[in-house]
Amino acid sequence: LAQDDNRMLEGLLPELRSADIAAILSDIAEEDEDQPTVFALLESLSLERRANVFGYLSSDLQAELAELMPDDRLLLLLEEMSGDERADLFNVLGEDRREGLLRRMAHREREDLKRLASYEEGTAGAVMTSDYVAIPSDLTVSQALMRVRQTAPDAETVYQIYMIDEQGRLAGTMSLRQLIVARPGAKVEDLMIKDVIQLGVDAPQEEVARLVAHYDLLAVPVVDEEEHLVGIVTHDDAMDVVEAEATEDIHKGASVGQLEGGVSRVRLWSLYRKRIVWLVLLVFGNLFSGAGIAYFENTIAAQVALVFFLPLLIGSGGNAGAQAATLTVRGMATGDIGVKDWGKLMGRELLVAGALGLTMALAVAPIGIIRGGEMLALVVATSMISIVLFGSLLGMCLPFLLDRLGWDPATASAPLVTTMIDACGVVIYFTIATAILMG
Amino acid sequence: LAQDDNRMLEGLLPELRSADIAAILSDIAEEDEDQPTVFALLESLSLERRANVFGYLSSDLQAELAELMPDDRLLLLLEEMSGDERADLFNVLGEDRREGLLRRMAHREREDLKRLASYEEGTAGAVMTSDYVAIPSDLTVSQALMRVRQTAPDAETVYQIYMIDEQGRLAGTMSLRQLIVARPGAKVEDLMIKDVIQLGVDAPQEEVARLVAHYDLLAVPVVDEEEHLVGIVTHDDAMDVVEAEATEDIHKGASVGQLEGGVSRVRLWSLYRKRIVWLVLLVFGNLFSGAGIAYFENTIAAQVALVFFLPLLIGSGGNAGAQAATLTVRGMATGDIGVKDWGKLMGRELLVAGALGLTMALAVAPIGIIRGGEMLALVVATSMISIVLFGSLLGMCLPFLLDRLGWDPATASAPLVTTMIDACGVVIYFTIATAILMG
Repeated sequence: LAQDDNRMLEGLLPELRSADIAAILSDIAEEDEDQPTVFALLESLSLERRANVFGYLSSDLQAELAELMPDDRLLLLLEEMSGDERADLFNVLGEDRREGLLRRMAHREREDLKRLASYEEGTAGAVMTSDYVAIPSDLTVSQALMRVRQTAPDAETVYQIYMIDEQGRLAGTMSLRQLIVARPGAKVEDLMIKDVIQLGVDAPQEEVARLVAHYDLLAVPVVDEEEHLVGIVTHDDAMDVVEAEATEDIHKGASVGQLEGGVSRVRLWSLYRKRIVWLVLLVFGNLFSGAGIAYFENTIAAQVALVFFLPLLIGSGGNAGAQAATLTVRGMATGDIGVKDWGKLMGRELLVAGALGLTMALAVAPIGIIRGGEMLALVVATSMISIVLFGSLLGMCLPFLLDRLGWDPATASAPLVTTMIDACGVVIYFTIATAILMG
Repeated sequence: LAQDDNRMLEGLLPELRSADIAAILSDIAEEDEDQPTVFALLESLSLERRANVFGYLSSDLQAELAELMPDDRLLLLLEEMSGDERADLFNVLGEDRREGLLRRMAHREREDLKRLASYEEGTAGAVMTSDYVAIPSDLTVSQALMRVRQTAPDAETVYQIYMIDEQGRLAGTMSLRQLIVARPGAKVEDLMIKDVIQLGVDAPQEEVARLVAHYDLLAVPVVDEEEHLVGIVTHDDAMDVVEAEATEDIHKGASVGQLEGGVSRVRLWSLYRKRIVWLVLLVFGNLFSGAGIAYFENTIAAQVALVFFLPLLIGSGGNAGAQAATLTVRGMATGDIGVKDWGKLMGRELLVAGALGLTMALAVAPIGIIRGGEMLALVVATSMISIVLFGSLLGMCLPFLLDRLGWDPATASAPLVTTMIDACGVVIYFTIATAILMG
């Protein structure tokens, strides 16, 4: 960017919202690959603003910018960031850098950061923040409100307040709404909800998001093995999890592995690796289709017209199967379908797939008559019903089977289902053809 | 259910959370299809609880239960429900019933309900609630806090407060957090944020969700054409939108139309209709593959071994194309990719798909040698690179093209992309085969 543009941007940025500043900086970093300019623009902001903006950047860009930053600037930034974002930034730094920074921190901060950064990615511990409001339960309402006012500047949210006992164990919760309408002299412990919806630090992040969505929560508290309150996950972080999980499931549905970062930004090598694995595995799946065709070479040689209908039949089975698999996988992910629903869904799929197969058989039968007469039409129609029915039932059952084996049901991707049905469809089609035409 | 079970449940329900009661009642309605029992259990709850639980039920079940309810009970329930849920329930009732109920309501309530119920589904107006806290901007902080306390019981959220001028136009906003730490005598208009993030009533619900997620908002205000504040969308409703939109996109990715309700509950006839449309359309797409094969019948008859590799080649192209299409569609849905990124993505896809094609060509070449010698291997390897490259670029471009034509990019489903690539792959493969083997 030209020097003038820079100066103009510097003047403009402080007027914008942090999320928008982050979007602009990401654009500059991506389009112009001009990280030094991004760094200079960031440094032109106030420390508080800089910390806010930094939290919105992708971890790749965070890592690149941290490289440009001397240790003392980075320490200042880390101290200003909220607990969860601080841990995320810390985790993208190199081992040596981390050690050096930790040595320069105060004991309490160091322990807090080490703890937050230690939780495995994808768990409640990794998405939670330690900036919550916790008070002893023997305070009065007015004392509690005073505490909330004092901690407001540092807390991620002040709208859900947690009560802890002397050992730091979670004892109850109250919303700020309840607190401001309560009688000032009342005891918090008489008003608080004691049966708190909570999660362990190791709970998967999908479960965090599902709890927040199911109960319409503002935040959900996270406890360790001894029931000590160690953090909270707020609604906005839960929303990010819902989005990220949906993206992961959608990518899996097309046999793409989990990408770290958006598709327009992720490294090419990483994109290649996440795509090639399944593509090569599926090549070997497709070999079975080829083997099936080779096995029926005599039937094909006698009736070359059969090949005309091959893509149509196995393609239709694959499409119906991909539909069934996708409906099941998404139903399981949103909690709409449980393992116990298997039998009921099987019955429903049998009816729907039967109707689908019949409709499509009627659609292709005339083409069969035109290209090869009534017997060929009979073969094609019978094969269509059989393959669509078989494909749909396979697509519906596969996610349950994978779940049973301890795999992610989302592994039942459209390409996997299609490939399996292709191979089986070849066998079904030519078996029926051999029986009717060569019998 | 047995009489005893019922009585046990009646005793148990009031102890549970509303979301859980709704889940239990939905289960009973679904498994036992015993709506009268569900109705009786609901009636055993307090009115406040009943209204809460009702809001969590699916619209199908709400409609069935409303049928069992006399007008006066239904009126009581409607009055107790929050604005947005009241409008949703109202919309599932029959025309006659709606007219009858409206006639028995107070004027103000009637107008409010008619207005909320009139917004088109999928817009900000349809997901917003009218139970927000709005105050004149000339109040002091302590006066404002008093107002918040008074409206707390009825408001959907009290954590974001909106300031309106005499004409009811949105003038500013403050969070309750800012309000409780502010000096009690300060004027609200000096503290409020005047540049409010807001939406029009007709904005699509995806945009509402994207704003809430992007800015980490608790709620976003909705205004009409004259800038009057008419409602707010809260974070929990925005989260529901994110989930619903993801489900819709995932279903579209497998060529399934938009379902109203979960896959385990939706009517079979509706499930059939949402699946058959694309399946039949794709049959005709597959006819092109058949026509391609018929056109090359001479090549095939001369070299039957070619058919062995057909599913493998067109399958691989389809899989790579489905990956590329899915990555693009999701990137566009999350805002990661914009139309301007087309050229850059094209370059990236060219590199990645080239590498993918090359890897897979190397994987299948040995099989070509085994089954038909070096010339066949050359044909298969060349076709693999060409088809994977072609398929990936098509898959990447199709969503952009659809978007350009004013269609939803998510229409570029795995089945559609696979079918298109199948047809083109047949032509590419046999053209290369004819040139090399018969030339």
